[in-house]
Amino acid sequence: MTGKAKTAPRVTLKDVAAQAGVHPGTASRALNDSTRALVNSGTAERVLRAADDLGYRPNPIARGLKTSRSYTVGVIIPDLMNPLFPPIVRGIQDKLEDAGYTPLIANTDNDPDREVADFEAMRARQVDGIITATARLHHGAATEGLMEGDPPVVLINRRDGSLPAVTVDDRAGIKLAVDHVVGLGHTRIAHACGPQNLSTGRLRREGFIEAMEANGLEADRSLMPVADAFIESEGERLCRLLLNAEPAPTAIVAANDTMALGCYDVLADRGIDCPGEISVTGFNDMPFSDRFDPPMTTIHIPHYDMGGRAAELLLARLEGDGEAAGPPDQVELQPELVVRGSTGSPREQA
Amino acid sequence: MTGKAKTAPRVTLKDVAAQAGVHPGTASRALNDSTRALVNSGTAERVLRAADDLGYRPNPIARGLKTSRSYTVGVIIPDLMNPLFPPIVRGIQDKLEDAGYTPLIANTDNDPDREVADFEAMRARQVDGIITATARLHHGAATEGLMEGDPPVVLINRRDGSLPAVTVDDRAGIKLAVDHVVGLGHTRIAHACGPQNLSTGRLRREGFIEAMEANGLEADRSLMPVADAFIESEGERLCRLLLNAEPAPTAIVAANDTMALGCYDVLADRGIDCPGEISVTGFNDMPFSDRFDPPMTTIHIPHYDMGGRAAELLLARLEGDGEAAGPPDQVELQPELVVRGSTGSPREQA
Repeated sequence: MTGKAKTAPRVTLKDVAAQAGVHPGTASRALNDSTRALVNSGTAERVLRAADDLGYRPNPIARGLKTSRSYTVGVIIPDLMNPLFPPIVRGIQDKLEDAGYTPLIANTDNDPDREVADFEAMRARQVDGIITATARLHHGAATEGLMEGDPPVVLINRRDGSLPAVTVDDRAGIKLAVDHVVGLGHTRIAHACGPQNLSTGRLRREGFIEAMEANGLEADRSLMPVADAFIESEGERLCRLLLNAEPAPTAIVAANDTMALGCYDVLADRGIDCPGEISVTGFNDMPFSDRFDPPMTTIHIPHYDMGGRAAELLLARLEGDGEAAGPPDQVELQPELVVRGSTGSPREQA
Repeated sequence: MTGKAKTAPRVTLKDVAAQAGVHPGTASRALNDSTRALVNSGTAERVLRAADDLGYRPNPIARGLKTSRSYTVGVIIPDLMNPLFPPIVRGIQDKLEDAGYTPLIANTDNDPDREVADFEAMRARQVDGIITATARLHHGAATEGLMEGDPPVVLINRRDGSLPAVTVDDRAGIKLAVDHVVGLGHTRIAHACGPQNLSTGRLRREGFIEAMEANGLEADRSLMPVADAFIESEGERLCRLLLNAEPAPTAIVAANDTMALGCYDVLADRGIDCPGEISVTGFNDMPFSDRFDPPMTTIHIPHYDMGGRAAELLLARLEGDGEAAGPPDQVELQPELVVRGSTGSPREQA
């Protein structure tokens, strides 16, 4: 904090961009002699005029730091087809672009070999930093030692203690789902578990056991089958297993929304009413979950904010100039229960 | 074709990968001295053994061509949050990875300035080629002249005559929707038009007029309001306008699925039954459109295949060795009608 001059707030790149009506990334390019040609001449003129009007002067320390930069950041995600990742990427991108950085995205398809290759490709392309949203517990770039040193790395959905990370409290999320169905009167509650080699799957299973016990209920292991992947067909398979239990559960807490959709399909196939006969909860509040039949009761995860916070953690490393303490290195966001149409009270026993 | 040796089919990288049970990209890295360290040692051993067993010899010409390559390909898309783009990216990725290339993805957010900047960032990162899926008619990288020369560029969803391109026949798609509702007995048919500065929006509007006329119906311009963007709120706005028409249409052909969802919401709000009172069609068959209420009648676009074909066109440029004529430079894929629950016969007039 020493050395912080007590002056009027400095005019920032963002102020200039707002005045010119452009993205800060565009403003940054327009203001930089070597990149001005990338911006339409009319836009560049508008930005230069706004900078002049506002008396904008680039931070000389930041300027000095930036000279060897590529202004690109690598973003590594495990599965672009999973609808929860686009909002994460969008959150990352909006924050990065505000600071003049372009994200370059790679999709590992949940393959540890691809993760290593993507990591190496990003480094070879000389990105200034990397944000990785893979939740794998073993193998991949972390175990290959690629995450140490340059460029700086921020984790999403996983924490290893030494790197900045943005996570969601998975245990708390599942507790919200369990408390909700217990509150409706359910006692025979199943958990369609996610894959146990992913931290999300493992933490949600642990959270389920804890939440059941906190409610004075037993977490019956025969009602906790485990999926190979967070996909619809695995939700279907687990739902079929659960319907064979004696007695069958009256509520299924699924480890994510797509697995809950698999449960929907099996229940519909067998003419079992949801939520009349069996309640189902999801996890993620993915896009369109309010439009499913029935609209899904689920746990809302602030994916866009997760991406934004991760970008902030990385930018704090890239732009740190001692002016502020900066955000904490470990950010844990809180999930929220969203009650819709897939849960209700269990039927009275005859 | 001259110089093609008539020998047994050459063992390919793909054969080695299949035998070793890994992705071809992984096999490529394992076989290359300079990249072997990126692969787990057990995996590398398995690949080398498979190559040995099969008698794999890398194509020497291809080897020579490849030495200065980065093995990365830039993929520029306009909006990652639009659920039709992830399947396109996945189709691109699967083909590229098969050939040992890693895609690096950038999201322009439909901003021409960002498109130029992403294009320039990709070039500066020395990608071997670029696939761009932006459908903008004016401004952007094309008008800045960035697409000429190196690296090679393939277009998705747009064609300019000089670059390889993969498109879908938008006019034919809308004709399928119009023919379907005409076949159900509708005559007062509206088109909720997409933005006219995008080729997709413009071609679908043209296709609507042609299809109405081909059915002997007038394309009533008062039933063809135009959206500012392909989004739900614009679908809502246009639907409200259409409900004010006298008489109101009995069928709305929306320019895409998200605009059709906006129509769903307005109809539900006003207690108007879909399809009982008004039929609605979408365009794209985006993920989960079969799960909406009602399940959406729409035009299926083969997004995954579009991505795959675009990757093939680019690889033909990167790997061309004179052995084959290669795929044609301009690929147009055909849409298909998917009839679900949002369309039905118009009610009898009293």
